[in-house]
Amino acid sequence: MVKAAILGYGTVGSGVAEVLSCNQELIAKRAGNPIEVKYILDLRDFPGDPNETKVVHDIEVILQDPEISIVCETMGGNEPAYTFSKRALEAGKSVCTSNKELVANHGAELLRLARENRCNYFFEASVGGGIPIIRPINNCLTAERIVEVSGILNGTTNYILTKMEQEGMLFEEALGQAQALGYAERNPEADVEGYDACRKIAILTSLVAGKTVDFHKIHTEGITGIDPTDFAYAKKLDATIKLLAVSRETEDGYQISVAPYLLKKENALAGVNDVFNAVAVCGNTLGDTMFYGRGAGKLPTASAVVADVVECARHLQKTVGCLWEEGEAKVADFDSQEGRFFVRVSKKARADVEKVFEAVVPVVLDSALEEFAFVTESMQEAEFEKCREQIVGFVKKIRIKD
Amino acid sequence: MVKAAILGYGTVGSGVAEVLSCNQELIAKRAGNPIEVKYILDLRDFPGDPNETKVVHDIEVILQDPEISIVCETMGGNEPAYTFSKRALEAGKSVCTSNKELVANHGAELLRLARENRCNYFFEASVGGGIPIIRPINNCLTAERIVEVSGILNGTTNYILTKMEQEGMLFEEALGQAQALGYAERNPEADVEGYDACRKIAILTSLVAGKTVDFHKIHTEGITGIDPTDFAYAKKLDATIKLLAVSRETEDGYQISVAPYLLKKENALAGVNDVFNAVAVCGNTLGDTMFYGRGAGKLPTASAVVADVVECARHLQKTVGCLWEEGEAKVADFDSQEGRFFVRVSKKARADVEKVFEAVVPVVLDSALEEFAFVTESMQEAEFEKCREQIVGFVKKIRIKD
Repeated sequence: MVKAAILGYGTVGSGVAEVLSCNQELIAKRAGNPIEVKYILDLRDFPGDPNETKVVHDIEVILQDPEISIVCETMGGNEPAYTFSKRALEAGKSVCTSNKELVANHGAELLRLARENRCNYFFEASVGGGIPIIRPINNCLTAERIVEVSGILNGTTNYILTKMEQEGMLFEEALGQAQALGYAERNPEADVEGYDACRKIAILTSLVAGKTVDFHKIHTEGITGIDPTDFAYAKKLDATIKLLAVSRETEDGYQISVAPYLLKKENALAGVNDVFNAVAVCGNTLGDTMFYGRGAGKLPTASAVVADVVECARHLQKTVGCLWEEGEAKVADFDSQEGRFFVRVSKKARADVEKVFEAVVPVVLDSALEEFAFVTESMQEAEFEKCREQIVGFVKKIRIKD
Repeated sequence: MVKAAILGYGTVGSGVAEVLSCNQELIAKRAGNPIEVKYILDLRDFPGDPNETKVVHDIEVILQDPEISIVCETMGGNEPAYTFSKRALEAGKSVCTSNKELVANHGAELLRLARENRCNYFFEASVGGGIPIIRPINNCLTAERIVEVSGILNGTTNYILTKMEQEGMLFEEALGQAQALGYAERNPEADVEGYDACRKIAILTSLVAGKTVDFHKIHTEGITGIDPTDFAYAKKLDATIKLLAVSRETEDGYQISVAPYLLKKENALAGVNDVFNAVAVCGNTLGDTMFYGRGAGKLPTASAVVADVVECARHLQKTVGCLWEEGEAKVADFDSQEGRFFVRVSKKARADVEKVFEAVVPVVLDSALEEFAFVTESMQEAEFEKCREQIVGFVKKIRIKD
């Protein structure tokens, strides 16, 4: 019997208890041992809950119980999750977490503590919810030089963009609907401004680089500026618009950004709709591969935490290798990032545009006759900004994912 | 230094040598040790090849060298691959293979031999080429009861169907093009009749069931009967046609079949085109997840073999758990499989059809006025056959993937 504790009995934490109980037998078989939840740490009590008697309010009960070998940290946020995770690892207890904030900030240190104490720090649920992506990068794509990771890493924004595309909704309308359905928080900033996706691509890139990516250095734009006219243009170009997190290895470091991208319908990511997430990984000999599924939600996220618990149970007293070490990975200068741009300008900018950009092919919408759009050649961000300054009547740009 | 041997220096075998050499440093880091190819077994010599001096013609050289801890079996077919694999495992050498035929036939026995000899038998490359799917099922989706696995598991047929859909080609034309491009063999039977996909879904279901699925019991149909009119109907129904392998857990055993299916465009598998493969796995708490990538090709397949080699190097003298054991998994009776059918019938069958099937909504193509099509309610195979016998003017049926 392997005994575990759950820190935080909110959505994910209660999901972990539910998955462990619902698939108990199968999980015991796969883990090589039955897994029992002995404690649940929460400030609240849960009278009437099937796990009522397991609730404790003091972390020390868990840390000082030698029977506990696995701790599921499903509290979220930096503190007290950080202190609790450190102390659990120092006590030789493996930690499985869904906490992207903590992993992005302190992953390398917590992984080191796990190594030093012959236990594990696993965080499959921190990126892509129920989609297996951390373990595939660590244990499956090991023959590859990973040259690019790109993905739809936030379900809320993908739901909003899907509604805008398929039903012609305004951003505010789609956001309201997402909130009504519980997909978006009342304060939706972390999702719609791209901060959530930013933490996640920082984690994925750290795994690929083997060193920590400082997420503050990632250029991050949200989707609040996207409007139905953008989607009308996208449709005309046989494309769609997605909030992508993109990370590419270059000689100058990792080029990383989170922003709305225009991408052709034939791109596998273009077909990822609603709250679904997907991560595309490009390897130097494998080419493109993609992992797709539910990026959030109680049970999918809990399922990923429980898969980590199974892996811990299979490797008691043994640290499973993960090449992410302390030290900072180089993030390339944003100004030098290269790509094509989709640009909307006022009709009167036509002469300017043709002087400044090469081979301009205007795209015109019947529904927006006062403007037109075009797609640039591939150029650096800084170079684009210079060109843009020379144009009176610039409306907006959206990057293109090639 | 970990030393390996490659059995068979054909497409995949030479790819394994290439990937190991091209990503040498990264692989050494991930494996915890540099990996060197010491021998290559082949009947031929390869004068001028960079690995010329490693070629041996006698398996005993490899089996009796205690330095060799990993053997890559990339010969294909049952013999001598089966004997060589058994003997390598009995000698305590881990075996990594791309040989679906052998895994489908003898996987459970070879896994047992690996356990008995404290080494590993890995076969990531046997299904889905470069797509990680075996290890995700074994090590990532461990919190789930897997209720369905369905996939596009053959790149050749997917290429042919894509050409038929997108360019209106006849089957024979598309096959000819696939052969010209090297995607299809001169004798394409194993691909176009579904036999290849059948072995692969047998392997995936065996992993899920924990016992061997006898692939002879899987109902298998190929794509030779699909014609442009089928695609015209599919388009009208906002659907496409794919060769799917589908395996579903039921109370009567695993319902498994390989056949062309009509599926709605919104199904994630519908967007998988050309030689790409994808495997969708549905778990009871996770819902749908999908793994997508190159299902064949020299380097993608080799990359999967090398990932297995890395995993072997990480677990020398230790068997990684795999729940597939000897004994036969129950395959449900085909007659009782349930689903909806797309049916084409001659115009004159209208009265019959309306008498025999419920709620018939005819679909008519301008290009095929002598017939019409309709979609049945969900019914068992046997029940459908009974209905069909009552119709004069039946043209064909295609199953529907819901």
